[in-house]
Formats: sequence, structure tokens, C-alpha cells
Amino acid sequence: MARIDDISDYLIAPDPGAKRLTRAVTGTDHNGASIDLNVVEERPLTIYLNSQEIVTAMTIGDYPVYLALGFLRNQGMLHAGDIIKGVDYDEELETVVVRTEAQTTYEDKLRKKTRTSGCAVGTVFGDMMEGLQGVTLPDVHVRTSDLYALAAIINRTPSLYLEAGAIHGTVLCQGNRPLVYMEDVGRHNAVDKIAGWMLSEGVTAADKILYTTGRLTSEMVIKTAMMGIPMLASRSGFTAWGVEIAQQVGLTLIGRMKGQRFVCLSGEHRLIRDADPAQIADEPRKSGRKAST
Amino acid sequence: MARIDDISDYLIAPDPGAKRLTRAVTGTDHNGASIDLNVVEERPLTIYLNSQEIVTAMTIGDYPVYLALGFLRNQGMLHAGDIIKGVDYDEELETVVVRTEAQTTYEDKLRKKTRTSGCAVGTVFGDMMEGLQGVTLPDVHVRTSDLYALAAIINRTPSLYLEAGAIHGTVLCQGNRPLVYMEDVGRHNAVDKIAGWMLSEGVTAADKILYTTGRLTSEMVIKTAMMGIPMLASRSGFTAWGVEIAQQVGLTLIGRMKGQRFVCLSGEHRLIRDADPAQIADEPRKSGRKAST
Repeated sequence: MARIDDISDYLIAPDPGAKRLTRAVTGTDHNGASIDLNVVEERPLTIYLNSQEIVTAMTIGDYPVYLALGFLRNQGMLHAGDIIKGVDYDEELETVVVRTEAQTTYEDKLRKKTRTSGCAVGTVFGDMMEGLQGVTLPDVHVRTSDLYALAAIINRTPSLYLEAGAIHGTVLCQGNRPLVYMEDVGRHNAVDKIAGWMLSEGVTAADKILYTTGRLTSEMVIKTAMMGIPMLASRSGFTAWGVEIAQQVGLTLIGRMKGQRFVCLSGEHRLIRDADPAQIADEPRKSGRKAST
Repeated sequence: MARIDDISDYLIAPDPGAKRLTRAVTGTDHNGASIDLNVVEERPLTIYLNSQEIVTAMTIGDYPVYLALGFLRNQGMLHAGDIIKGVDYDEELETVVVRTEAQTTYEDKLRKKTRTSGCAVGTVFGDMMEGLQGVTLPDVHVRTSDLYALAAIINRTPSLYLEAGAIHGTVLCQGNRPLVYMEDVGRHNAVDKIAGWMLSEGVTAADKILYTTGRLTSEMVIKTAMMGIPMLASRSGFTAWGVEIAQQVGLTLIGRMKGQRFVCLSGEHRLIRDADPAQIADEPRKSGRKAST
């Protein structure tokens, strides 16, 4: 079973004390009394691929380079073959420019698209689905004892969520060990920051598990599959299309995971059910964690 | 105090029984037993302004015309002066085309932008902030007794959230009466659908309150202000920028509203504190509602 010490095993853990990530504000409570509280920051970050402006993300502001790299990779705008020459983050301008050695195929596609319709926004989604076509996920096994151990560690890891709320968390795990725990106000930024870290560090995806506090929507499932990770677990619920895509690409999808309970709606074949759910404690009411809807 | 009958007073209420909005799926639970559950649908909808493709939204799929109108209005792409000639929804193509009598200023701006940088994605955010500059919110009062009554009615209104989870809700209210309750998988679609309904029906904003299950981010605050609604309340928490913008435009912002508790971080002057919080019941554990993070 997981020990308290396991929390120090993270390669990257949340930094709830970081000054730049929360702001102290003053208001009134239900009795009209003055109240001070910490709320999470939210900043725009504009991502460029070479000279091409791609998107402005709303982010808490940590790890902007990982966010840019992971976003471009997960959207299929940056491919495995693209050689990254440099990444420039300008804090004042709130921009990140990712520079590749050669022009990417995405820029070429964008230019063609722009000529016909004037804009590329609508292509983003089509590109993501297209990117999935080559994906095959590895046929590994995942022990339910590891899943329960991960949930127990992650739920009591100090985080911005516990400190200030209003934020999503995503954790890259291996076996029963959580490795990288990213948080962000933007719904998909946390997972993109993990993708950017994996890309920068050349980390293998096949033996990993992704755990998220957010809902299992199509976009979360697509991003996980694009990263090559065979398993996605969440405290929250599912959308029908998220389930459908997981089944199509053979991703193991687990949701509504709280205490001993969980539901598996895709990729059951990867599960080794070695834990007895009756031995897993239910979550106390004041666990501090809710499912994100 | 609110009566059960009040639920039937909605002009538009959620339709949790609607076949098209949920899908029955089968999986396994934590004991490995087969389990059937209903999960919410999620579909792409591509929005056009005249011949210009604008965005592909991920939506549950109800009220596509309101979603398109409200999105364009809240993004500042459609102005009060623009005369709408027609709106065409094509269910098979999953598109909505909003046609205006004259070309909009937005299309002109987009064309200029496209010539210089090739794409318009990044301008969306700047446009929203720009749209706020002319906004002044009316100096009305809101009774805390009405807020408590609204929360009590909304929390026990049958909804897709209670049926299938993984969805956001936003409710347009007047006094102690909820009028239009929209739900959607896409984070801001619920509020855009309300904006579209208001635009279509020519509804006054000054005497309204907006209630949401989601977080009070910059985008939620901007959209509420763009709609001319002076007050936004939520069960969930705040971001620092959401608070800052609310203070700048003078919007009354209430968060973390559960049972008798709430926090007001902007626009306190609109509140008439006529309810005694000690008389308001705390929420039972199984209220079925959690704060969305």
C-alpha cells in the first residue's frame, strides 16, 4: 500500500506555495463579514509555430514551454520527425515560439486552408481525428492494486486544487508511482504540459497511465491516445464520444473512480483485477476532492 | 421560500429524458460485474458567419441555433446593429450558418488579420476584451433571499447532470425565478445558448441574474458582461483574472455558493442582505451536486 513518503517520489509535483500561481483577494462572506482568500491566476499565452500564430491559451502560467510543445504535438501540428531548433518564451509578451529546423507540414496545410476559407480554426478538430489514424496502443497490463494506490497518493498530494480550488489536475504515472503532476485552469493544458514534458525528456509512453481530475471527453481521450499512453483514469464521468473513440483506438478508459468504486467502459482486457475492492477504504466526506463535471 | 411547483415555471428546462442527448453504454464496475449507464452525447458543431468558418464547438447538440448566435454575440463578432437575415442548421453536416444582411465588421477585420498572419485564432481573445470596453452594467439590486431561493430550485431541478453527469449547467434567472436552464458538455456553450436565446427573443438583461455550475473564469465573466447581465453566481470557485475583470466592469460576482455559504468578490453594492443565513439549510451530503472545478 502507498506510504506518505511516496509523495516525495514525484519528478514534478504541484507547487501550491508558489507566489506567481495564486493571488490573495478580499471579499465578503454570506454573513457580510470580510474574508481573505487565495484564488488561482489565469493568464493568456499565445503559442506560435515558427512564424505562424496558432492559439491563445488561458493558463495558470507555469511550464509555458511544455504547454506549447505539448499542445502542438497533441493537435498533430508537430510530428515525431520534426526537429525542434529552439523554444522561446517571452514572459512580458506572454508568447511562446516553437521553432523547427524545417517548415512543418502543418504550416503548409494551414496556408492552403487559409487561401480557400480564410481561417484555420475549424481544421484543428479534423486534424486531431486525422492524427489518430496511425495510432496503435501497446498491449500492456495494468493492476487494479496500482490504480487504487495511485488514487490514494494523488488525492493527498498537496496541490493548488486543495489550496485555491478552481483548477484541473493531470498526473502521469508508472506502475503505482505518480511521476509528473500538472495543474491548470485551462481544461486541457494540464495534459498538454505533460505531453510537452514527455517530448522534451524523450519519455516512453507504453508503460504509463494517465490520471485526470477532469471529465473523459473526446478531446481528453484523443490527447491521451496521441501521446501513446494506453490507459486513462478519472474521478469524473464520461461523454459518449469519449467512450466511442477509446473503444476505436483500444484505449483502457476508467471513470468515476472514488474510494473502491470505478467503471471501465473500454479496454477491459488490460486490467489485472488483483485488488479486493472490499479492502479499499471509502473516501472520507472531507477528502477535499470532488469530481469535476 | 421556493416551492416544488416552481420547477414548472421554467421557460426552457433541461430535458434529461431526451433520447438524442444521452447514450446507453455497457462496461464493468470495480467488482468486474457488467454495468449499464447513460452517458451524455458530445458532437462537433461548426459555426459559420456568412461565408466565414469561425469555430468547431463540441456540444451536446440541443439548441444549435442559439449556440451559434450566442457564441458570435459573446465573442463580439456579431453586434447589436447587425441585422440577421437567417440562420441555417444542417444536422447531417453538423453546421450552423448565421447570415447577416450586410457583411459584418468582424469579417473585414478577419480578412485583414488573415492577410498578415495567416490565421485569426489568436484574435478571438483580444476581440473579447475589446468588446468589453463599451459595457456599463445597470445599477440594480439583488436580494440574498432570491439567491438562496434560486439555488434551492435549481439544485433539485431534474437535469442531464443528475441523470448522466459530466456536464455544465447555466441558468438565466429573474428575481427568485429561474427562466432558462441550459446544459452542455462544452464549458461555455451553456452560457452561449442562453445568450442566443436572449438575442432571438429580445430579452432585457438588466434585471437578470446568471447562475452557473462552473468556475468563475475570465471567459465566464466576460461573456456575462457582454450579455449586459449585472450579476453572476456559482457553486464553484474563482480565478484571479475573473475577479479582476468583474471588478473592472462592476459586475457582482458570487462564488462557492453552497447551502448558506457564499463569497462575494466584486460588486457588493448590489446586494440587499435580507436573508438570515442561519435560517438556510445546509446541503445534504447526497444533494447530487458537486462544485465543478
